[in-house]
Amino acid sequence: MTSPIGVSILGLGIVGGGTVELLNRRSDSIAKRLGRPVEIRHVVVRDPAKARDIQLPSGVVHTDALKAIDDPAVSVVVELIGGHDPARQYIERALSKGKSIVTANKSLLAAHGPELFAAARKHGQCIAFEASCAGGIPIIDALTRGLSANAIRGLVGIVNGTCNFILSKMTKENLSYAQALKGAQDAGFAEADPTLDVSGRDAAQKLAILSSLAFSQQVAEADVICTGIDTLDAREITFAGELGYVIKLLASGWKDAGSGKLSLTVTPTLVRKSDVLADVSGGFNAVSVWGDAVGHTLFYGRGAGSLPTASSVVSDIISVASGSAKLHFDTSRVWPDLTPRAQTLAPEASVHRFYLRLTAVDRPGVLARVTDLLGKHSISLGAILQQESASETMVPVVITTHQAKRGDMLAALKQIDALDVIGAKTVCLPILGTV
Amino acid sequence: MTSPIGVSILGLGIVGGGTVELLNRRSDSIAKRLGRPVEIRHVVVRDPAKARDIQLPSGVVHTDALKAIDDPAVSVVVELIGGHDPARQYIERALSKGKSIVTANKSLLAAHGPELFAAARKHGQCIAFEASCAGGIPIIDALTRGLSANAIRGLVGIVNGTCNFILSKMTKENLSYAQALKGAQDAGFAEADPTLDVSGRDAAQKLAILSSLAFSQQVAEADVICTGIDTLDAREITFAGELGYVIKLLASGWKDAGSGKLSLTVTPTLVRKSDVLADVSGGFNAVSVWGDAVGHTLFYGRGAGSLPTASSVVSDIISVASGSAKLHFDTSRVWPDLTPRAQTLAPEASVHRFYLRLTAVDRPGVLARVTDLLGKHSISLGAILQQESASETMVPVVITTHQAKRGDMLAALKQIDALDVIGAKTVCLPILGTV
Repeated sequence: MTSPIGVSILGLGIVGGGTVELLNRRSDSIAKRLGRPVEIRHVVVRDPAKARDIQLPSGVVHTDALKAIDDPAVSVVVELIGGHDPARQYIERALSKGKSIVTANKSLLAAHGPELFAAARKHGQCIAFEASCAGGIPIIDALTRGLSANAIRGLVGIVNGTCNFILSKMTKENLSYAQALKGAQDAGFAEADPTLDVSGRDAAQKLAILSSLAFSQQVAEADVICTGIDTLDAREITFAGELGYVIKLLASGWKDAGSGKLSLTVTPTLVRKSDVLADVSGGFNAVSVWGDAVGHTLFYGRGAGSLPTASSVVSDIISVASGSAKLHFDTSRVWPDLTPRAQTLAPEASVHRFYLRLTAVDRPGVLARVTDLLGKHSISLGAILQQESASETMVPVVITTHQAKRGDMLAALKQIDALDVIGAKTVCLPILGTV
Repeated sequence: MTSPIGVSILGLGIVGGGTVELLNRRSDSIAKRLGRPVEIRHVVVRDPAKARDIQLPSGVVHTDALKAIDDPAVSVVVELIGGHDPARQYIERALSKGKSIVTANKSLLAAHGPELFAAARKHGQCIAFEASCAGGIPIIDALTRGLSANAIRGLVGIVNGTCNFILSKMTKENLSYAQALKGAQDAGFAEADPTLDVSGRDAAQKLAILSSLAFSQQVAEADVICTGIDTLDAREITFAGELGYVIKLLASGWKDAGSGKLSLTVTPTLVRKSDVLADVSGGFNAVSVWGDAVGHTLFYGRGAGSLPTASSVVSDIISVASGSAKLHFDTSRVWPDLTPRAQTLAPEASVHRFYLRLTAVDRPGVLARVTDLLGKHSISLGAILQQESASETMVPVVITTHQAKRGDMLAALKQIDALDVIGAKTVCLPILGTV
């Protein structure tokens, strides 16, 4: 046994607590695997008086981040504070002091990944960030190592457990969005302020990171066209179900074969019930990746939570401690500081099948006018679902289309929604295709 | 760009051909990723006159394995011959000459892994073998890197594409085993002699390798209790379907929490239709892994085929070329040459739910006698399925049980099958539990 590897952990929230618990629980086997033990030298918290159910020697838990970062016996700084400031300053300081970083901070990496990776490289260190995307699923390892022989065509992920929990609840228990959100909050699956999750922004940040690696291009959160689940009407789930689909919040990144440009979206999407992604329910995440050699692969597991996320954090600590993360960072040219800025496809150019729900006057000839307008924009129909109305004067008409350009669809919808027989803005969602 | 990395490929069958194709197709991006190109210097074949649709400079394809191994400009030897001899001798020679190995040879590793890994270590080299299990799925990387923070409780895999193809065909098209095997052979999914696949031995070899890594113990093929699909009656698929299950050939490795002993089986198993594994059909493979921190994870993709398997071979070549595979081999103490010999649980001690199909005289009181005998062995019943008989004197009676020890079940079945009202040996299959 050689000298221990000193670790400082910044933040003792849900993931920080799980990381301490797992490092303690597995300390013998980690020491055996690495040939040397991992020692938690500092855990930095905001409030040291807060009661916590963790086992640490006295003096380890304190509030002094700089002391934790600067300790010469510390070689790995684990940043689990989240947010941009002061997390970014702490990471930069640690790198400049010759320490490598393990982080779960998707928001910071999606915004400032290239600068932070460049800083790590300048100081001869590395940043490991498996926990930033899809919790315990080793998807970053898969994209950068296991699938490294492939040209990645695209990836589609369910990467936000909160949204997936809410959508599963809406689907299984026939609830409205507001009711399901309340249930998710009561069960601890949604924050008191759920905006970051339900707006799709959290998924967009993860997609930016995963797409950067999959396509070897710098992708920023702002490159992702994002629609959340917060405006989703439960009727979409019902009608989709009748047509053989479930609705999932999908984060999708595709490389256009011709132009090489990326199409990056987060949006509620219809997924055929027989698709493996349709079975990903509750707090689980999954990422499907299509490679030119391997074809379709899928990686599934818990997307959040204390110990599942700590699984990725501690695997990264082991990888940094063994030198493996650093070698990977030095020898693979896929990291965002080394790759060109992504070119994105105009949203209008992307091609999908679509689900439409129109709100139409219940009168003969209306459907003919709608399909005529769709046809004029080269959009042909798949299924139509129109139920007999009871007393309402406006009825929902659900249509699925064949593949169409989003630009054509938007132009057609502008004309359709202007018809005097249409009573509300038409709902339009993409349908996940088969690849 | 520094000097190229010289590679020799032994064997130009389905996987070898895919490897050459992929290395050629991706040569620019591999060179960019590694900072140096990969050069195929030798491809060793049995019959150089055979027509092949591959692009290689003249003189590269030849029959002289020793020349290919001994070339001082070669640093990676890719063994894709399969079988034990001469593959083993070639690998040992290459290691002794200071070359690292990439191999897809599950049979050889399951039988002689510890000696070969020890030889690699002695000579300061490494062996990369992602392609040996589950084709293009980076499951070995996941077990040894991405999930390294976890104590693995168990793994359950669909790891033989041929069997999965046959079972999917039997299920979807209502075919007998013999008919489905014929279809698989016609579609190129089964060999002319399918014994290795349908007997379950191929899956047992993969399970031995995966369990070795998951549990850090030396597991040999002979440690696996193995039942194939070649004796499976199509009626089991029909009855299982009526009860809400599909039948999959599952390779399972579990660590007994108390004794630390391993339970290792390959057997046709009932899987609830709502389970993610139930949706793995055709030539796809999937491996579920349960870790103490991460919980349930699943890895899915094509389990065989030229380019999917080449995806793993070429990823390994990249990993060996970058030094990453060697560092991993040196710093992770999970490889079978460093771990103790596995202790296995007596088969009688393993606990499952069971599916039974009895062949019983259609007479009142028979079921009571059967359930009485089961009860005497502490086995309680879940569902019973007994259809009205038309003209037959013997009728099938299908029973599912609650959890029971296999030893108790075998003892009960011995007595049940000795009853004068039972007309044939009772079929007994395990049911995959929830973890």
